[in-house]
Amino acid sequence: MPAKTRTESSQPDARERLLNAALVLFTQRGYAASSVREICAAAGVTKPVLYYYFNSKEGLYLHLMEESYALFVSLVPKLTSYTGTVRQRVIHLCEGIFDTSTQKLDVVRLIYSIYYGTPQGAPAYNFDRCYDRLLEIIVGLVREGIEQGEFRAGDVGDMTWAILSCLNVAIGGQLSHCPPRIDRTAIARILTLLFDGLREK
Amino acid sequence: MPAKTRTESSQPDARERLLNAALVLFTQRGYAASSVREICAAAGVTKPVLYYYFNSKEGLYLHLMEESYALFVSLVPKLTSYTGTVRQRVIHLCEGIFDTSTQKLDVVRLIYSIYYGTPQGAPAYNFDRCYDRLLEIIVGLVREGIEQGEFRAGDVGDMTWAILSCLNVAIGGQLSHCPPRIDRTAIARILTLLFDGLREK
Repeated sequence: MPAKTRTESSQPDARERLLNAALVLFTQRGYAASSVREICAAAGVTKPVLYYYFNSKEGLYLHLMEESYALFVSLVPKLTSYTGTVRQRVIHLCEGIFDTSTQKLDVVRLIYSIYYGTPQGAPAYNFDRCYDRLLEIIVGLVREGIEQGEFRAGDVGDMTWAILSCLNVAIGGQLSHCPPRIDRTAIARILTLLFDGLREK
Repeated sequence: MPAKTRTESSQPDARERLLNAALVLFTQRGYAASSVREICAAAGVTKPVLYYYFNSKEGLYLHLMEESYALFVSLVPKLTSYTGTVRQRVIHLCEGIFDTSTQKLDVVRLIYSIYYGTPQGAPAYNFDRCYDRLLEIIVGLVREGIEQGEFRAGDVGDMTWAILSCLNVAIGGQLSHCPPRIDRTAIARILTLLFDGLREK
């Protein structure tokens, strides 16, 4: 097999360039304001290339969303296979999701901008599917914690939301306009506070 | 003093109508896409009326932001004057902020859409000022909790973020595309979990 030429090895292919260009334009200019022409120009491809891979701007957008959901799903086995106490496993899960979110911060930013932003005519996408899957995993861990006597008996839903809150504020904080005030190390510290309680015993 | 006519008592004045119209348009169509002409048409006033009260679209937007900050500041004495244990006071504070946020959900929605949304050329506004003030209040409560022996000694910053997380997820949840999954009563329950800890003692 011949060695790859420099161009082949260092440049992402047209499909990848389209995804990257769309992500930048959708986040910085908005979905509605980004035209097929502009996305193609930014990716250095012609319109038929976009239509060939994604059919339309809508298709390109939905692909970005599906790809991030697929990434999350692919991480689940690794994030949940950690062995240790339930509290260690909760921390491992939350740190893993935080890490992926910061590595893919542009995608997270796009998701937040579509979810909380002005409606822009982007095709409907069920963002809560990812959240629901995460809730489900945490519910499972909380149940296990209670069954094994590591957590006290309590409302599983409330306990799950308490855990998810910490992760939420840490990820949301990375999108702040100021330098983020919560870093990765804070997740374990805040979760530990939740496990042990603030109350003087 | 003569009784107010029906029109006077039931219709907001032009200034108020402009603020309401701008809030709706900025949230639903976006700041950039809402023109002075459209805002005036929705408010049923002529352009000079907008210029008279707010100088410009920018001025109208900044007024909405300043007004919500002023509302928050005006609530602080009431939210912090509650007497009781520190944990009761934290719950009272968080429930009070949640209540105001749900009463003013359109403003909260606009703030989220500007903060997390695609940049739309809206004039810069320091949203973190409100957050910082809130952090300051919670820091004060946590310090008091520790000093009075109600909370155990610990990192005040981490304890503050742990508390703020619960409030954050409850308010953010009100902007969800699905029916909110956290209601007002969950705030006290989740904070109580944080105070007491999840761990079986």
